[in-house]
Amino acid sequence: MIDTSKGVTAAQGFLASGVAAGLKKSGGKDIALVVSQGPNWDAAGVFTSNRFFAAPVGWSRQAISDGTLKAVVLNSGGANACTGAQGDADAEQMARLVAQAIEASPQDVGVASTGLIGDHLPMDLVSAGIAAGIASLDSDGGGDAAQAIMTTDTVSKQASYASDQGWSVGGMAKGAGMLAPALATMLIVITTDADLSDTDIQATLLASTHVSFDRADSDGCMSTNDTVLLLANGASGVKPDPAQFSSALTDVCVSLARQLIADAEGAEHSITVTATGAATEADALEVARSVARSNLFKCAIAGNDPNWGRVLASIGTTSATFDPATVDVAFNGVEVFHQGAPGRDRSEVDLHPFDVEVVISLNAGQTTATIWTNDLTHGYVSENSDYSS
Amino acid sequence: MIDTSKGVTAAQGFLASGVAAGLKKSGGKDIALVVSQGPNWDAAGVFTSNRFFAAPVGWSRQAISDGTLKAVVLNSGGANACTGAQGDADAEQMARLVAQAIEASPQDVGVASTGLIGDHLPMDLVSAGIAAGIASLDSDGGGDAAQAIMTTDTVSKQASYASDQGWSVGGMAKGAGMLAPALATMLIVITTDADLSDTDIQATLLASTHVSFDRADSDGCMSTNDTVLLLANGASGVKPDPAQFSSALTDVCVSLARQLIADAEGAEHSITVTATGAATEADALEVARSVARSNLFKCAIAGNDPNWGRVLASIGTTSATFDPATVDVAFNGVEVFHQGAPGRDRSEVDLHPFDVEVVISLNAGQTTATIWTNDLTHGYVSENSDYSS
Repeated sequence: MIDTSKGVTAAQGFLASGVAAGLKKSGGKDIALVVSQGPNWDAAGVFTSNRFFAAPVGWSRQAISDGTLKAVVLNSGGANACTGAQGDADAEQMARLVAQAIEASPQDVGVASTGLIGDHLPMDLVSAGIAAGIASLDSDGGGDAAQAIMTTDTVSKQASYASDQGWSVGGMAKGAGMLAPALATMLIVITTDADLSDTDIQATLLASTHVSFDRADSDGCMSTNDTVLLLANGASGVKPDPAQFSSALTDVCVSLARQLIADAEGAEHSITVTATGAATEADALEVARSVARSNLFKCAIAGNDPNWGRVLASIGTTSATFDPATVDVAFNGVEVFHQGAPGRDRSEVDLHPFDVEVVISLNAGQTTATIWTNDLTHGYVSENSDYSS
Repeated sequence: MIDTSKGVTAAQGFLASGVAAGLKKSGGKDIALVVSQGPNWDAAGVFTSNRFFAAPVGWSRQAISDGTLKAVVLNSGGANACTGAQGDADAEQMARLVAQAIEASPQDVGVASTGLIGDHLPMDLVSAGIAAGIASLDSDGGGDAAQAIMTTDTVSKQASYASDQGWSVGGMAKGAGMLAPALATMLIVITTDADLSDTDIQATLLASTHVSFDRADSDGCMSTNDTVLLLANGASGVKPDPAQFSSALTDVCVSLARQLIADAEGAEHSITVTATGAATEADALEVARSVARSNLFKCAIAGNDPNWGRVLASIGTTSATFDPATVDVAFNGVEVFHQGAPGRDRSEVDLHPFDVEVVISLNAGQTTATIWTNDLTHGYVSENSDYSS
């Protein structure tokens, strides 16, 4: 259903490119462009709630406030965060350069950046890179764009869905692996040729991100630059069934979110933490997130230890409704804690596979929710400390 | 003022011992006893708020509910947590054995345990160990007791204060280094020969723990077994000035808390994170704690990098009152972020010393608070993952 070989150019009427502008020391691609050819320019966006949001986040938030975007320009190699008035001017200039080239208003161009916090972007390189990116726009350029937003990612991330009604939706993502030496940043651009002119596109995007990116938690740290943009150009001429479109969009988002977690810095295990039998969704999320944020739990998984004591110690700190005497915990299907007491022996659990599933049954209701995370490894510490020593 | 060579037997009228009962595979001391000779038996306690609290926590909480304790028995080598009804019976039996030996009620004996979650204590060894501990009680036994509660601690922790009015207060602590393969546990026993019969001893203890142990945050993980007990026997015959006693008790608690953080698992830096200029104490604590719990920040310190971007990204997630444009951040006295923009160059900061001080000036009020933490190192990952692989 989900095709991970195509991304932002899976849908009709979108051009993309990715070029090397010299922002990355490695010489890799570092400027990405996504341009919509219309006929519609409906758009929605979700951004970091960090109060120290980056300049491009501030720009894109206001640019999208009228519900339209014609293009997005993204760069790796510099976050343009905590850079003051100069940073704001630089983000606007990136939008302006793209707008001039595609004959649009700067207000129709979204901007996203990722990299080190606190440094100004080398705007001469950025300008030349945008010009090169414009020159290489291609209806098959999604893969290049996905590469150009990578930082410590080891692979690029794409996902797309083609409906049998003639519309498609596809996206690209980077992040959840941390930037050395700065921050985790999740940058996502999703495109669709479905006609969403009659749809509350912002609500649709929020519903999908709520059950996808919001549930990926690599290390509990929130970036200054997180950005999710959805562009809908209606090029297929089809107004989709809202439920079907929402489902497809969610599937694309979930695929991208899980690709992010699987490639998180140093990850040796991709972990799903599911709380089931919860009284409310908020309870399920609080319980699952408390486990996903426990460094002790994440170290234990790195060591292939089904340490249920660390799971209980985490959920014991939550305010979720449950009776400690009726909680069950299973690792990869083996119920090691049953009804408030030790269950099957931990030696029955095999944690050598990359994918680990922890299920906490609260026996307090009917609601289930999952958080995706990864283990805490020597690789994580190295990527986030050794760079400077 | 604070003497770290003496602990629970610094005050008059307290006996203590520490013996090897075979609970620790290493063969080290693992049963500790603290016995008060009166004439008073005033006591107060503070316990983990974890809902999966261990059996000894449940026992001690009810034992101290009448405000009196005559003795405390502690063991390392097993947490007696998540052990069901058998665990409750075992904790009570530990109190009963001590009570019989000192001719008291079991309700007058506190119990504390630390070690692996989910295993039952070997009660034959515990019983023999308590008998041996009773036989070796000594008015100079505080050092042995402090050793017997160590787990992954590399040094024992004691602190005492002698007033010029003739009363003393002293204590011992273990923890904040994590247990392999279980949890962080903080066990603290404090004794005093001051006469606190006219004092609200519980309120006095809470006031001191609020500004000491509550502000030590090694890795954000809360134990099932955390216990702080204060025993006051009045043996000095002196009713202290309440403010002076409170200050001395706080100094002892702060010394123990900082010893815990300095010896936390894998710690290569001891870090004080201070938020100043806050509108409220809650704001200051939220800001300081958000930084102390950032894995990215803690990895950066391990790498000797004054990464102020990670500090800002953390405090940007809080709800504290401040204007991002007027925040300052200093590492070891060098203001690397000033009034919302990059300040002095990060190369001016030397993070090679063990002690690191990060000061965040919110410029929103008059309140200051500090959280003590440590860096996130390869040693931490090793101690909490490699044990089983």
